[in-house]
Amino acid sequence: MRLRVELAPRAEMTFPDVVIVVDVIRATTTAVAFLEAGARTVHFTASPEAARAFRTRGALVAGEVGGLPPEGFDLGNSPREALAAPVRGREVAMSTTNGTRAAILAAQTARHVLLGSLYNAPAAARLARALAREEVAVLCAGKEGQPGLDDTYTAGVIAELLRAEGPLSPNDGAWIAFATREAYPTPLEALRRSAAAAALERVGLEADVPFCAQIGGSALVPVLKGQALDALAFVPYA
Amino acid sequence: MRLRVELAPRAEMTFPDVVIVVDVIRATTTAVAFLEAGARTVHFTASPEAARAFRTRGALVAGEVGGLPPEGFDLGNSPREALAAPVRGREVAMSTTNGTRAAILAAQTARHVLLGSLYNAPAAARLARALAREEVAVLCAGKEGQPGLDDTYTAGVIAELLRAEGPLSPNDGAWIAFATREAYPTPLEALRRSAAAAALERVGLEADVPFCAQIGGSALVPVLKGQALDALAFVPYA
Ligand SMILES: [Ca+2]
Ligand SMILES: [Ca+2]
Ligand SMILES: [Ca+2]
Repeated sequence: MRLRVELAPRAEMTFPDVVIVVDVIRATTTAVAFLEAGARTVHFTASPEAARAFRTRGALVAGEVGGLPPEGFDLGNSPREALAAPVRGREVAMSTTNGTRAAILAAQTARHVLLGSLYNAPAAARLARALAREEVAVLCAGKEGQPGLDDTYTAGVIAELLRAEGPLSPNDGAWIAFATREAYPTPLEALRRSAAAAALERVGLEADVPFCAQIGGSALVPVLKGQALDALAFVPYA
Repeated sequence: MRLRVELAPRAEMTFPDVVIVVDVIRATTTAVAFLEAGARTVHFTASPEAARAFRTRGALVAGEVGGLPPEGFDLGNSPREALAAPVRGREVAMSTTNGTRAAILAAQTARHVLLGSLYNAPAAARLARALAREEVAVLCAGKEGQPGLDDTYTAGVIAELLRAEGPLSPNDGAWIAFATREAYPTPLEALRRSAAAAALERVGLEADVPFCAQIGGSALVPVLKGQALDALAFVPYA
C-alpha cells in the first residue's frame, strides 16, 4: 500500500485511488465543523460568486477573502463559528481558495476524495485505509502552490495514523511530513509557527488556531459525493 | 534577513537576491567536484544536445539521462568520477534535467545564483550570507516539480549553517527543511531513503550516495557568471 504525500498541488497531478485533501487552516477543519454542527452537505466552491449561487437552494454561504467574509456572506471561514452555526439539516456553500483548488484537482482523477484535518485525523485515516486498494494520498492545499508548515505537519499526523494500521511504502513527501510532525511536541506549536497562522493573526482571527490544532475532536469524514453548480459536494461518510 | 526555502521550483517564482540551487543527488554535488578537480567553468545545459555543442570549445561533456551518460558523452553525472576526471584548466558542460531547470529559473531574476550541496554546504552558506542584502533563498531542484527528501534535507543543513551566522526570518519551507534535517542523525540516512538514491541503485550507481552525503569536503562555491550557448556558466567564487 503506497503512502503518498503531496506537499502542494500541481496541475499535472493524477490520483489513482484515495485522496485526503488537507487545508488545516482553515477550510477542511471548518468543513468538518459544519458537518459536526449538523449540516447535511458542504459544497466547496471556487469563488464567492459561485458560493452565493447556492442561496437559491436555501444554503448558508460561508467563506473568506483575505481572511474575512465578503459582502453578503452569512459566515466566515472560522471552524469555531461553524460549530455554533444554525446549519442543522441545511447545506453550506464554502468559498475557499486553496482548499477548493486542491479538492478540484483531486476530484479529476481520484476514486475517493476525503477532507482531512487534525480535527478528524483519526477517522479520516481509518476511512482512507479502509477504502484504499493501492494508495492513500494526502494532498496538502498549501498556499498558491507552495507548501505550508501547517498542512505538512497535519499530513505527518495523518501519515502516522495510517502507518499505525499496517505497512506502507512512503514517498519522499511522506518522509518530509513525518519529519515535520516529529519536530514539534504539539500541533499548536507547529501551526502557530506557520504563515497561515500569521495571516489569521493579521485579521484578528488567531483564536481559530487552537481549534485547528486539536487532534480527533470529530469522527466525521467529509466524502465527495458529486458536483452541483460547479462546486464539489461533500457529505459525511456513512 | 529572510531565509526562504523553496522545496521545488515553480514557473512563477522570482528571487530578489541570493539563491542557492540544490540538486544534491547529483548535479550540484558533481559541479562542485568538477571545480575541485580544477575545471575553470562548469556549464549547466538543458539537454544532451546543448551539452554536446560545447565540444567545439574544447569542453568535456558530462551528464546523464536516466542515470547513465548518453552516447558520445565523456563522463556521466557522478561526483566521484568528476573528482578524478582530467578537467584541470578545462571547461565542463553538464547536461542535467532538474538541476539546470532550477538554475535557469533562479537566474531569471536573482542577483546571485550559487550552487549548493552537502559537499560545499559551509562555504555556500558563508558566501550566501556575505552577498545577501535582504534574503537568502535555497531552491531545491526536486524532481519534476516535486520535493525530494534529499534536497529538502540538504536545504535544512544549509539553513542551519545560515542561521548560525545571525538572525533570520524563515518561511514555511525553511521550517519544513529544518524539521527534515533534525529527523535524521546523519546525512547518509536521509539521502539513502530518498527516491533519488533508489533511482541510482537501479542503475548500479548507489556508491555515489555516500559521496553526496559528506558535509563540507569542499570550500568551493560555483557562482553564476553568465550565459553562453544557451547554458549557464558557473565559476568558482573568488
Ligand atoms: Ca512543493
Ligand atoms: Ca490553509
Ligand atoms: Ca536530484
